Amino acid sequence: MDEFGLIEHYFKRPPRQTEVVLGVGDDAALLAVQGAARQLAVTTDTLIEGVHFASGAAGCDVGYKALAVNVSDLAAMGARPLAFLLNLSLPKADAAWLADFRDGLFALADAVGLDLIGGDTVRGPLAITITALGTVAPGEALTRRGARAGDRIYVSGLLGEAALGFLARSGRVSLPPSMQAPLFARLDRPLPRIAEGQALLGIASAAIDISDGLLADLGHILQASGVGATLDLRRLPVSDAYVAALATVGYDPALVFGDDYELCFTVPPERVPALAGIATRFACGFHDIGGIVAGAGCVVRDGEGLYVPARAGYNHFHD
Amino acid sequence: MDEFGLIEHYFKRPPRQTEVVLGVGDDAALLAVQGAARQLAVTTDTLIEGVHFASGAAGCDVGYKALAVNVSDLAAMGARPLAFLLNLSLPKADAAWLADFRDGLFALADAVGLDLIGGDTVRGPLAITITALGTVAPGEALTRRGARAGDRIYVSGLLGEAALGFLARSGRVSLPPSMQAPLFARLDRPLPRIAEGQALLGIASAAIDISDGLLADLGHILQASGVGATLDLRRLPVSDAYVAALATVGYDPALVFGDDYELCFTVPPERVPALAGIATRFACGFHDIGGIVAGAGCVVRDGEGLYVPARAGYNHFHD
Repeated sequence: MDEFGLIEHYFKRPPRQTEVVLGVGDDAALLAVQGAARQLAVTTDTLIEGVHFASGAAGCDVGYKALAVNVSDLAAMGARPLAFLLNLSLPKADAAWLADFRDGLFALADAVGLDLIGGDTVRGPLAITITALGTVAPGEALTRRGARAGDRIYVSGLLGEAALGFLARSGRVSLPPSMQAPLFARLDRPLPRIAEGQALLGIASAAIDISDGLLADLGHILQASGVGATLDLRRLPVSDAYVAALATVGYDPALVFGDDYELCFTVPPERVPALAGIATRFACGFHDIGGIVAGAGCVVRDGEGLYVPARAGYNHFHD
Repeated sequence: MDEFGLIEHYFKRPPRQTEVVLGVGDDAALLAVQGAARQLAVTTDTLIEGVHFASGAAGCDVGYKALAVNVSDLAAMGARPLAFLLNLSLPKADAAWLADFRDGLFALADAVGLDLIGGDTVRGPLAITITALGTVAPGEALTRRGARAGDRIYVSGLLGEAALGFLARSGRVSLPPSMQAPLFARLDRPLPRIAEGQALLGIASAAIDISDGLLADLGHILQASGVGATLDLRRLPVSDAYVAALATVGYDPALVFGDDYELCFTVPPERVPALAGIATRFACGFHDIGGIVAGAGCVVRDGEGLYVPARAGYNHFHD
């Protein structure tokens, strides 16, 4: 049983409280507090040493990334960041590491306006859980459920940068140092698309952040919306560094490796002009990579025919 | 540096968002969503195998307790339970353990009306983080800050039951089996005082749940409120089993071992009649154990004089 099946099978039940607008199964849950002008978006992620980050990783990068993966979920809902909680399991209280971790954590918290409001500190294997809260106007949150046949599919920014950074750092791909630095930055310091997500409110019909790889995450939109998709590989936004490495690495780092923390979203044809209107405000760009179709599953085409990725997206309990 | 110092030193900063009514440093944080008729109380706790529960502990007990420690924090704020998120780090996907864990978790969730709204499942050392949300009328939450000289100090239920259960299970105290069973129940299945906490709204001036031991947790009220306390050991509510073990274990299990998940709260003299009025609704009882005084720190007296506990409350990073 895989990670998603495990949650579905053991823990997913219909919510009973009337305040719960959206429960398990999206980038964030949505709560409607009685009388409130904004709904709450709530999301949480855990990072484990040796699984999500390397042993010996710089504290500041770990702190930054532990928050970034949660902020990215808020971005995918179109939510405005509000506050977060930090659960820190530490083998020992290492002052230098903690100060470094704190600096990375607060650098992003300050950049997006998140207050630390609580948490827990325990002795144990190095692990970080962060729970982030944001707000969004009632009924406006971008969920995974709204994609319809005929919608265009977009991604923000460039795909595969973090994956390529990972491959370069571990020596599996060779690139000039000038090309490596931006890739490492994308791997260690992803840029959650908070402003982009909020700008997509009223434009996108569905959205998700790309944490597990484009195919896996787009797959969640398709499943939640009950639709299929066709993607055109030639439209995939990749960097010059990626093009330089393409012969070695192929398209899998951009399609299935994950850790990009870009947004993947769908836009009904009539709202494509509105998307063009806001796109000029964002340097990352919004790239049309394909379309939603009736049916199920995702077909990826390149110039010659169908493309079959070598591996599936990242999944903790996949056999 | 201890657990509390670590949070204060590295992570406590004044909140900037106007929605944050109460940040780091109480049983739960408080958020005021614009226009809402209720404030949100948010709390989180992490339980680690081998630290917070024994390796090999029954999944149902672990699931129950992981939620209970969070529900107890909501109780200490007088909040009504709303929803929770579950972060599960598992060495492997063990179906029998997961089903058992789920049953214990949902038994308590159903009893108090909490919806599971999200979470994360990762591969790693066995650890559970739960984040719980409740609601409370604006300005009514029971915090640690409101105790004043002259207030009486109360605890709900019996103290030291969980500690005695721990000592009995590990063979350090010998009791007849009929006396052990209720103690094990209190250790594995604490009863968060949700109804009691809500009934104390408008009566208690400050409140906390007893997770780290009465002296440590009352100490948090004293520090947050800028006051001191005197406790009378002879008034400490303990069970017949505790009295039977008193010669062996002394008062420390009731004062400093923790894991009771009872409430400790203060009541101004003029509201003591109101407390008596609601007390009849709760089988656990509310027990006057001393008074708040000007100054700082806690003096514990027994019949003969001052009592000095053998050890401090539980603290993960105490040297």
